[in-house]
Amino acid sequence: MIALDAFGGDRAPDEILAGALLAHRQGVPVLLVGNADTLRGKVPHGLTVVHSPDVVGMDEAATTPLRKKPDSSIRRIFELVRDGQASAAVTCGHSGAAMASALHVLGSVPGVTRPPLATVVPRKDGGQLVLLDLGANVDCKAEVLVQFAVLGDAYARAVLGVARPRVGLLANGEEKGKGNEQVRQAWQLLEQMGNREASLPGGSSAGLNFVGNIEPLSALRGECDVLVCDGFVGNVMLKTVEGTVEVVARILKEEILRRGSDRFAAWLLSGAWRRFRQRTTYDNVGGALLLGVNGIAVVGHGRADARAVASALRFAHGCVQASLLAQVKAQVGQRLVNRG
Amino acid sequence: MIALDAFGGDRAPDEILAGALLAHRQGVPVLLVGNADTLRGKVPHGLTVVHSPDVVGMDEAATTPLRKKPDSSIRRIFELVRDGQASAAVTCGHSGAAMASALHVLGSVPGVTRPPLATVVPRKDGGQLVLLDLGANVDCKAEVLVQFAVLGDAYARAVLGVARPRVGLLANGEEKGKGNEQVRQAWQLLEQMGNREASLPGGSSAGLNFVGNIEPLSALRGECDVLVCDGFVGNVMLKTVEGTVEVVARILKEEILRRGSDRFAAWLLSGAWRRFRQRTTYDNVGGALLLGVNGIAVVGHGRADARAVASALRFAHGCVQASLLAQVKAQVGQRLVNRG
Repeated sequence: MIALDAFGGDRAPDEILAGALLAHRQGVPVLLVGNADTLRGKVPHGLTVVHSPDVVGMDEAATTPLRKKPDSSIRRIFELVRDGQASAAVTCGHSGAAMASALHVLGSVPGVTRPPLATVVPRKDGGQLVLLDLGANVDCKAEVLVQFAVLGDAYARAVLGVARPRVGLLANGEEKGKGNEQVRQAWQLLEQMGNREASLPGGSSAGLNFVGNIEPLSALRGECDVLVCDGFVGNVMLKTVEGTVEVVARILKEEILRRGSDRFAAWLLSGAWRRFRQRTTYDNVGGALLLGVNGIAVVGHGRADARAVASALRFAHGCVQASLLAQVKAQVGQRLVNRG
Repeated sequence: MIALDAFGGDRAPDEILAGALLAHRQGVPVLLVGNADTLRGKVPHGLTVVHSPDVVGMDEAATTPLRKKPDSSIRRIFELVRDGQASAAVTCGHSGAAMASALHVLGSVPGVTRPPLATVVPRKDGGQLVLLDLGANVDCKAEVLVQFAVLGDAYARAVLGVARPRVGLLANGEEKGKGNEQVRQAWQLLEQMGNREASLPGGSSAGLNFVGNIEPLSALRGECDVLVCDGFVGNVMLKTVEGTVEVVARILKEEILRRGSDRFAAWLLSGAWRRFRQRTTYDNVGGALLLGVNGIAVVGHGRADARAVASALRFAHGCVQASLLAQVKAQVGQRLVNRG
């Protein structure tokens, strides 16, 4: 079951419930979590509710579910995962509160000190780029970037099925020596890890495939599978992608509206345009995954509508089916804990 | 005159000369700088050459024009500005060497310790966003971000004609307290500066209009005029914009090619598409301006073709005509040097 916070997000609970129904019909087992009294009469047929009376608002502190509201739905979803009643947790609520709750309730996988948020971005070559951290950890030491690299590698292998993911460090230039201080240090550590693993038996396929510094343009063209950065930079990059898609669509629209014949042609193109918007709308990605906590935890977009909620649920379900957590534990255990 | 490095850039000297001619015909006074022997017979009618025999290759060290090749064109252009024979310098060559030469030859305006690279990015609302630093200074203290804010403000006033530019700090969230350590410190310093200036006579129009943290999406939508960040983050943001435009254009093309009727409609739309590409191609911006050095110094794109070179020359010419340097000196003198 995927435990879903029915009261997380700007459009909760109605859009959340509609999204749950959508995913349920697509074969995703959903368990609703929230105030059963408020939900009475609204719960779609076939879904059940775990009662959790409190709601954490978007303006409350991230620590609210830990201190003031231990009975909040945004915390309860992770307790269900911890207690084995759910295999993953999804919320579109307060992302800080979600991260704090997940970490508090589930703890992190031994070897991971700062779990990052990860998501996938479509690449020009048709592949998918795993980008992490998206904002969970703003000031990161080089050792933390190394953890992100190992976690991103595990994600790309388990969920995206990439045999030997190319792992790059996001930087302002590809040459060694480019990057800020923590990037330069992380390069050293990742290079050592890659070399060490390549020298082990079978290392050529199982080892970390560190490809050095990668610039955003190269990453979006497809030169790596996993792109590692601190949460400040990753957040800037992800939101710049979103913003640019918006600006580009607007400029294109303005140019098309200049002439009547262009407007006609654009009308003819509406099918292609709709497919384009579907591929570039981040609702389809499903949200961000909190990697490295001891369970599958997905944080959806605060403005998620039913379609985006369903997408987040499918995303979580996919991680469960791919045995992501086992893969993460194996990789982290081998690379960050027991390294000889 | 605008001194142009005839041997800077991947397509030098042919595309550089063609760009010089283009700008010359548009009324920009251009002075070519480079090896006169190599250029013999190639110089367009109406243009003159200042002889400077050496060329700095893209694979050489940034300090080459300072140490090994003092007679290189990439250094000579700045000497012409220093000596009053040119009012601005433009190169599409090695950007590190250009910055090192500009700083070495021209020095920085008193009060500026780390001159940033700045450019403009088109916003969704039709306005222009001044983004700085783009990579000149990778690890920046808060005080350096404050310098960038003052310089960006001066640029937006002088060149873009914005009466009271809204200056924001690029961050991963708009609330105070968001951002990494240097952003949080810079917020304090910029808030103090804004408050102090607002309390002066006439402060409401002349004072720094600090609007706090700004996320990339909001900035691209038009919520600020100047966006301040360190060179690592700014470089990531700028290259992410470029990369996303490329990915978006590719995805749109793929969807259009799926159906014959879409291909026909797209053919009808080719005019709108061409205008769209013109507006989203960064060749039209003209390059990056090294703000805070004691002269106008423009670094164009290494892959610049004739059109991009002409655009960089017009950009430099515009900065001269707007008396940018005087504005920069006045603002920096008032805000960073003589502040009471």
